[in-house]
Order: sequence, then structure tokens, then C-alpha cells
Amino acid sequence: MNILFIMFDQLRFDYLSCAGHPHLHTPHIDSIAEKGVRFTRAYVQSPVCGASRMSCYTGRYASSHGAQYNGYPLRVGEITLGDHLRGAGMGCWLIGKTHMVVDAKGMERLGLARDSVVGARQAECGFDVWQRDDGLWAEGPDGFYDAKRSPYNEFLKSKGYPGDNPWNDFANSAAQEGDIASGWFMANADKPANIAEEDSETPWLTSEVIRFIEQAEGPWCAHVSYIKPHWPYIVPAPYHDMYGPNHVPAATRHPSERIDPHPVYGAFMNNVIGQAFARDEVRQKVIPAYMGLIKQIDDQMGRLFGFLKETGRMDDTMIVITSDHGDYLGDHWLGEKDLFHDPSVKVPLIIYDPRAGADATRGTTSDALVQAIDLAPTFLEAAGGEPAGHILEGRSLRPLLHGETPEDWRDFAISEYDYANSPACTKLGVTPRDARLFMVADKRWKFMHAEGGFRPMLFDLENDPQELVDLGANAAHADVIALMYERLGKWGRRMSQRVTRSDADIEAARGKGRRKGILLGVFEGADVDDHLTVKYRGPIPQNGPDQGR
Amino acid sequence: MNILFIMFDQLRFDYLSCAGHPHLHTPHIDSIAEKGVRFTRAYVQSPVCGASRMSCYTGRYASSHGAQYNGYPLRVGEITLGDHLRGAGMGCWLIGKTHMVVDAKGMERLGLARDSVVGARQAECGFDVWQRDDGLWAEGPDGFYDAKRSPYNEFLKSKGYPGDNPWNDFANSAAQEGDIASGWFMANADKPANIAEEDSETPWLTSEVIRFIEQAEGPWCAHVSYIKPHWPYIVPAPYHDMYGPNHVPAATRHPSERIDPHPVYGAFMNNVIGQAFARDEVRQKVIPAYMGLIKQIDDQMGRLFGFLKETGRMDDTMIVITSDHGDYLGDHWLGEKDLFHDPSVKVPLIIYDPRAGADATRGTTSDALVQAIDLAPTFLEAAGGEPAGHILEGRSLRPLLHGETPEDWRDFAISEYDYANSPACTKLGVTPRDARLFMVADKRWKFMHAEGGFRPMLFDLENDPQELVDLGANAAHADVIALMYERLGKWGRRMSQRVTRSDADIEAARGKGRRKGILLGVFEGADVDDHLTVKYRGPIPQNGPDQGR
Repeated sequence: MNILFIMFDQLRFDYLSCAGHPHLHTPHIDSIAEKGVRFTRAYVQSPVCGASRMSCYTGRYASSHGAQYNGYPLRVGEITLGDHLRGAGMGCWLIGKTHMVVDAKGMERLGLARDSVVGARQAECGFDVWQRDDGLWAEGPDGFYDAKRSPYNEFLKSKGYPGDNPWNDFANSAAQEGDIASGWFMANADKPANIAEEDSETPWLTSEVIRFIEQAEGPWCAHVSYIKPHWPYIVPAPYHDMYGPNHVPAATRHPSERIDPHPVYGAFMNNVIGQAFARDEVRQKVIPAYMGLIKQIDDQMGRLFGFLKETGRMDDTMIVITSDHGDYLGDHWLGEKDLFHDPSVKVPLIIYDPRAGADATRGTTSDALVQAIDLAPTFLEAAGGEPAGHILEGRSLRPLLHGETPEDWRDFAISEYDYANSPACTKLGVTPRDARLFMVADKRWKFMHAEGGFRPMLFDLENDPQELVDLGANAAHADVIALMYERLGKWGRRMSQRVTRSDADIEAARGKGRRKGILLGVFEGADVDDHLTVKYRGPIPQNGPDQGR
Repeated sequence: MNILFIMFDQLRFDYLSCAGHPHLHTPHIDSIAEKGVRFTRAYVQSPVCGASRMSCYTGRYASSHGAQYNGYPLRVGEITLGDHLRGAGMGCWLIGKTHMVVDAKGMERLGLARDSVVGARQAECGFDVWQRDDGLWAEGPDGFYDAKRSPYNEFLKSKGYPGDNPWNDFANSAAQEGDIASGWFMANADKPANIAEEDSETPWLTSEVIRFIEQAEGPWCAHVSYIKPHWPYIVPAPYHDMYGPNHVPAATRHPSERIDPHPVYGAFMNNVIGQAFARDEVRQKVIPAYMGLIKQIDDQMGRLFGFLKETGRMDDTMIVITSDHGDYLGDHWLGEKDLFHDPSVKVPLIIYDPRAGADATRGTTSDALVQAIDLAPTFLEAAGGEPAGHILEGRSLRPLLHGETPEDWRDFAISEYDYANSPACTKLGVTPRDARLFMVADKRWKFMHAEGGFRPMLFDLENDPQELVDLGANAAHADVIALMYERLGKWGRRMSQRVTRSDADIEAARGKGRRKGILLGVFEGADVDDHLTVKYRGPIPQNGPDQGR
């Protein structure tokens, strides 16, 4: 079996027709849901690209792998999905974005060269690279364009798009009277990107995936990682005007949310992004483009799945469709991601498992509490590897895919967010160490703890599914809050770093202490089996008369 | 300045005359207390050799470094004291024991060879090795004698001691009618080890320290790490009969402790070691030998400190005297270490700081809550390095050594214990993952949480300084227990793995996002400074008429 692990960037859980979107029709993605299981309570471990992805690629919570925000290097030696899968005989390839930043100091400390196989994998979060492209080839006074890191940009140049950064000037900008109309300016979101549709990012990456599969020798796991529908919010024709303001759902927000909000929530509401998305004109410009990007994605999925069918790969390939986090798009007076309302922290997760064991669940949904870190153990199990519960903190989803309902499935999900880099942190006067948020969610309640002396937040998901009423200061819910703190405490005490010794190793070693010749608590020889004391009895060794003493 | 970081193994906090022992006179160690500060509330981060030492050598809690028990490898790439000190221009050397186990799988994954400088440091927990000797050259059916790891044994052979393992046959055994009388049998503890005193382990290692210092070029940190007074409890003449049963303090224990004890405590009480030390004859044999080993240690310290004075090193060398944990010796019906009563988790800690700033505190004691992980940051500061609070979880003791009383000093200390390998775990039916204990201690209370659904333990250190009355099931103390759980929760949420990005890095990077050319929340050009949008405006690049589009 192979694994096609498809991740979109910033794709909301509810912007698919299979998830009930009223205007967006995504038949190709829906076709996978029809063949597999769609999880309706899938949470990312951190609602921001870098940290969320490092959790997916290590199968570990953000606090466990330590790369808690964009641009924080993943420490050298952290064990990755690639390490696990290769150990089980499955290749692990990257086609697209990871947001990985190399731990250059750690590599230097260990003398690892980037151009060695080991060094390259360390630098690429454990993947072997087919194409690495993180998108975002921004320029400016301190821009970070890097030809080696931008195969898409190089592709555009090879196609004749002029200038140093056609990613910026064409793929992510419109043309307006001969001038660049940048996608960075949301006012331009309703314009068509100044690029042939087939040359835009999503079709380019899809072509790379097909090219990879055509030559791949299995078993393989391919992490197919699209930058879209992530901003800049701009899409080429014909997708730019498929949707208009009349297709924009009303924002999930209420004026009462702005009255005495939790201080951290309030600070995010008041940042430039929150203020922008509070404006209806911004939503009406951006959301149709966002929908167009998703429609384009779905069409490309149609192309990809068609290829799989033609080549027989649909029968031996597990297909996973998910996202690294969502997008507020003005809900709750916020833009971007960051906090723990559903539009941000809940993601689409659809898994098609070709094995017969999954026949019973095809076309169903599961409302189990699942986490992005469950994917790595799911893949490892599919690859036939030994479970690695001392390293991987998620749980294999196989039982859920195969119609089993494990009684001991988790009863709460965890997500984290480190906002130490944000202006909110400065504004609130919080130290980097205290700028951390924790979500604990079960099926009824969603709780948020903020370090730094703040009160918690709490939503009643049953009576307030839109998460509009924060009960965190409500004394009537003290019991729920206490329970959530108890769960958070249990999670905080979890065994997360004993990565060099498995539970099975420990169990196998039990009781062997005495056999190593270490005798503790023995008063005299009669207290212990003779065979353990063979060296501790008998005549003193002699070298002869000149034994030197 | 140099640092002499002296660690004994299994030395109780109260078996020194400066700590009030009624019979044991340790003038040389006391002389350092007279020149420095003796800490009366110093806790190790785990009361077992391997985990405690890995905490000392990384400056991190056991749950953070993951080597939570003896024999658990320290994960490759974990940043060590040696890494920190060398980064500050100070060498970091090992002379003696570490209990380090190499992460062989991790080394292989990263392609690190043991015989490279990098590989050797990884394998030796960051130290450059002058001598590595962990003692315990046990033999038996699965013995683990290794000539490369036992320079002391090789020394004995070079002196003419016969046989394969003179460590066992002479240094740790007595002679009885021409037969080996093994120190592993506590009944032999009152006999003299069958070895010339000057050839025994403590003098040998002291000679190695002197030999190291004679050739060392500074600045250096030398971790001088003695195996003694660790078992086997046996010592050469004249130390074997300096003390007798009349010098053995009454055991700190009460029959009431055996009535309905906390299940984990009860399981340890009932193991073979606890049962042995419950017998008076065991204490009366063992404790005089333990005291003799300490007396020998103190004499060797006299030799070492005399050498430092003669060579002028006393003026430029910080001297630290501590232990990796204590020894119950029958207190609380227990032997060995493992749990969190003071005889086990509290250690001697004496620091002599030659700097003038420490003149005000010479000869004083400090009752501040200090932890073994405070040593690494203390040393790093002494070496002039940048603080590394994102990696090191302790705090520099310099303020306390220099007479300052930081208002924000910690108000609780943490220790942990992983008993997954013990027979107690099997007997209690606890999984390896749940076989973990946590201590939270302040100056008034000591609390223990056990995973796995057990009630906590609680001692009132003010009214019950001997820790004889467990209040963990006492409803009257629910508030204290709640406070302790709150502290444990806060600790559990600590930022422990963001080791690749310092707080200072984060603060320096704040607000730079926009300068990188990423513009979020910008509706139109007018919303943002012109210089940030220079690439997003202006004419579209042209290649001429054949630009390929």
C-alpha cells in the first residue's frame, strides 16, 4: 500500500460541499469522502502553519517537538514520520510545502552537512524531497527569495515569465492598466491573477505529484502539500469570478463578543488583520477568491484522482485530505488563524483506506475526537511498522476507519498556540514564555487556558455551537473548568520525551536487574539463588607468589 | 575561573558533620562549607542515579530530557553542560561516573561515529573524557564488564591484582578464610575490603583528579564523580571499623507508616530492599560501612583540597560538593532511594565561590529551594556564557551565593521518579506510562502525585519534619493538595522543548514580519508604508515581445 497524504494550507473544515457548504461544490474531494471516512471533529495541534505541520510530521504535540511557531527550527534529531516509515520499509517523500526551518546550530553541533543524505533529511523534517516549495516568495527590504527553495518560481521563469519573482508579479498579482495589482492587497482579490490558469501553483504542484507517482517504486508515502487556499487571496480566471458577494456566508460573529472579551482574544480582535476582516467589504472581496482557490483545488483533485484510477493506484493507495489549520475569514471578528474557534483549529480530514477492512465505513462520517498527530501512527501502522507510542503521541485511526469503536478512545483533544511573536504579546505585556495558549476540547465543551495570569475561556458546544458566548468567567461553570484543568494537568504530565526506550523494551527488561549481577537488598548468600552469586563466592584469585600485593 | 564539580553517589544530606551528623566527622568537606554556602533544601530532579545525573548534565527536568531511569539512553542531540560551557570557552571534562547510556539508534540514524569528536561527546553526555568509570563491574550470567569502561579495574590489574575482575574480588569483597566475602552480601559490610586502602576506588579517582588538574589548561570545568558511598557497602581498613552499631542513628520510621500506606510506598516497603533494611542487623552492619566510606571520602577531599591550596587553584576554582541522591538506610522502612522522603531526594549541596562577590556569604547556609538543575546555569554564568533559559530549566545560584535574595525565586521544587522497571510496577499492575511519580515541595509541604489513579501523598514539613504522617487522604488538607496540583499543572505546561529559539531571539524578531514582505490584513496600498510595498506596485516586468506567455 502507498499513502497519498494531501494537505492544503488554511483550508477551513466547512468550505467543502461534503461538509455542507451552501455554495461551493467540490465533487472530487467529496468523492473521496464517499469512499472513505470524513472526520467531523479533527483538530490540529496548533492553529498556525509551522507548528501544526511539525506536529503532523513528528506525530507529537507542539510542546513536545518544540517548534512552536513559524520559523522556529525543529531540533536536530527529532524523530520524524520519514524515520518511522523508512524503518518500516516505506519511502517518505515531500512534494510541496513543509514550513520546515533547519536547526542550523544543532546541525553544526553534530557536524551534519546539509548535502549528506542524513543532513538533507534533518534539514527537510525527515522527508526525501521531490519538490520543496513553501510558496510565499515575498520580497521587500528583507525579502527571503531563494532560488533553491522555489522550484515553482523557477518553473515560471522557465515558461518565460519575466522578472526575478514571477511568483509575486504574475501568480499572485493581477494586472491593472499595465501595473502590478498585488494579491497582497485584499482590494485586488476579485481580479484574476495575471497568469495562465495551468501555470498557477495548484496545477503545477498537481503535475509534480503525477510526475512523482509515474516513476515511484513502492511502497511510498507522498506528502502532497499545497500552499493554497492560503493567502495571498487571488486566483486566475475562470476561478476569480465564479463566486461573488452573494455567495459569502454571513460572518459567525456577534457584537457581544467585543464586550469585555478575554484579553488575549481582545488583542487579536484589535490587530490589523482582525480589524480588516471586521469590514464587510474585505470579506466580500476575499471570500469569493478563497472559494475560487478551493474550486481550483477541487478540479485539480479531479485530475489527480483520475490519474490514480487510470493507473490502478486507487486500489492500493490510502488517500488523506486535510489542512494545517483553517481561516477565520472574519468569523469572531478575526482574520487568519491563531486562536481556537472552530474555523481556525478544526480542519477537514477525509481518509480513504483501500483495504477491505474499511469497506464497512465507506461514505460515513466519524465524530470521534481526532487529532492531526493521529496521522503519523495511522501511516506507520499501514506501513506495517512497530507501534512507537513512546515517540508518537497520537493514535492510529485504523480502528475508526475499520468500523471499530475503541472504548478507550481519547475523551479530550489538545491544541496549543504560541503567540510570543505577535504584537498581541507586546501589547499585553506578556513574556515570550507566558505567551502560550492551550485548548482542551471534548464533544460538549471547548476550554482555553492562557498562561500569564489570565482567566480561561469556555464554550458550550452543544448549546452554543457557534462559540459566541464565552463562559470562562461564569461561576456556574466552575466544575467544568476544574475538569478541564485536571485534563490539562494530566496532559502536561504526559510521558513525551522518553523517545529512546519503548514501553515494550521496559516490560521486557523487568526483573532482569538481578541477572546482571547487581544484588540489592541481599544480606547473605542464602537470600538469593546460587547461580546469581557464582562470582561472589569461592577462592580468591591468585597470580602466584608475586601477585603484587 | 575553573569549576570543580564534585559529585558523590548516594551520599545522604545529613551524613556530614557540617550538616549535624552526631558521630561522623568530615572536617575537609566542612572546610568548604566554611568558605562557601551550604544549601539545606537542595533537591535532585529524580532520586535515582541515571535520571538525576542526566538532569545535572543537561540542566533539565527528567521529563524534559527523557532519560527517566537508569539505562535509558539520553537522546542524541540533547544539549549538555559541555555544549554550553564549550560555547562559552570553557572545557568540560569527566573524571569518574556518569551513568550515561548512548542513544545508539539515534547515533546510527544521524550517522554519528563513536570515534569522532562529536560522536564521542554524544556518547558521553557532552563531556570530554579524562576517565570514565561507572563502577559496578558486576559479573554474573549477564554481567556487563567492559575493559574500556573500567579504567579502575584496569588500574587494579596493572597493580598486580589477579583475576578478571579485581573490582569485584578485592575492592568490593573482603577475604574470609581464603574465600571471597562479597560486599554484595550486606552481612560482610563490617569486614575490611581485601585491598590496600590507597588502591581503593576513592583514592584512585582522587589521584586521577590531581593528575588532570596538573596538566589542565584553563578555564576548565571538571566533573569529579565518585561512585562511593554507593553500595556495595564495604570499605578497606582502617575505615571498616571506625564506626560501629553504637554510632548508628535510630531509623526515622514509625510502625504507623506501615498501616494502610500509599500503595506505591507500600509496594516499595515490601520489596526485598525495604524488607532487608527493616531489619536492625542490616542497618547495624551497613551503616558503619557507609560511614567509613564517607570518612574515607572526606580524607581524600583533604588530600585534594591540600593540592589545590599548594598550587594556587583554591583562589580561582569554584568548588561544588553534592550527590546524585541519598540513601534511605532503613528510614521509612526503605532501603536505596527511589521515593521522595528527605533521605532520598534531598542532597548535600555546598558551593565555594572564590569570587569577591561571595565574601558576604562565606560559611553561611541557605534554606532557599534549590534544585540540582540549578548547577548548569550557575556554571554557565560563571563561565561568562549567555544565559540559555530556553534550554536550561534551572536558575543560576549566583545571586544566592552573592548574598542577594531574589524576590522571584521559585516557591516550589519538583522531582520525578519513573518506577516502570521496578517489581513494584508489576505488582501494582501499573503500565510503564503510568509508573511515574511527581514531587512538589515548598518549605512547608511536600506533596507526591502518582499517575495511575492513586491518591496523593502529603507531608507537613513544619509539624512533621521527619515525614512520618501522610496527610494525602486527609480531607482537611484539600486546599493544600489543590494548590499542589495547580503548581504541578503549571510545571507540566512549562516551555521545555523550544530549545532552538531563545526568548531574546523572539523579542528581537518581534514586529519584523512586515519587513519580510509578508503583508497580512492589508486591504490596499494606502494601509501600509510605501517602502514595504515597493515590489507590489509599478509596471509589470517585460521580457520583450517574446516573453513566452
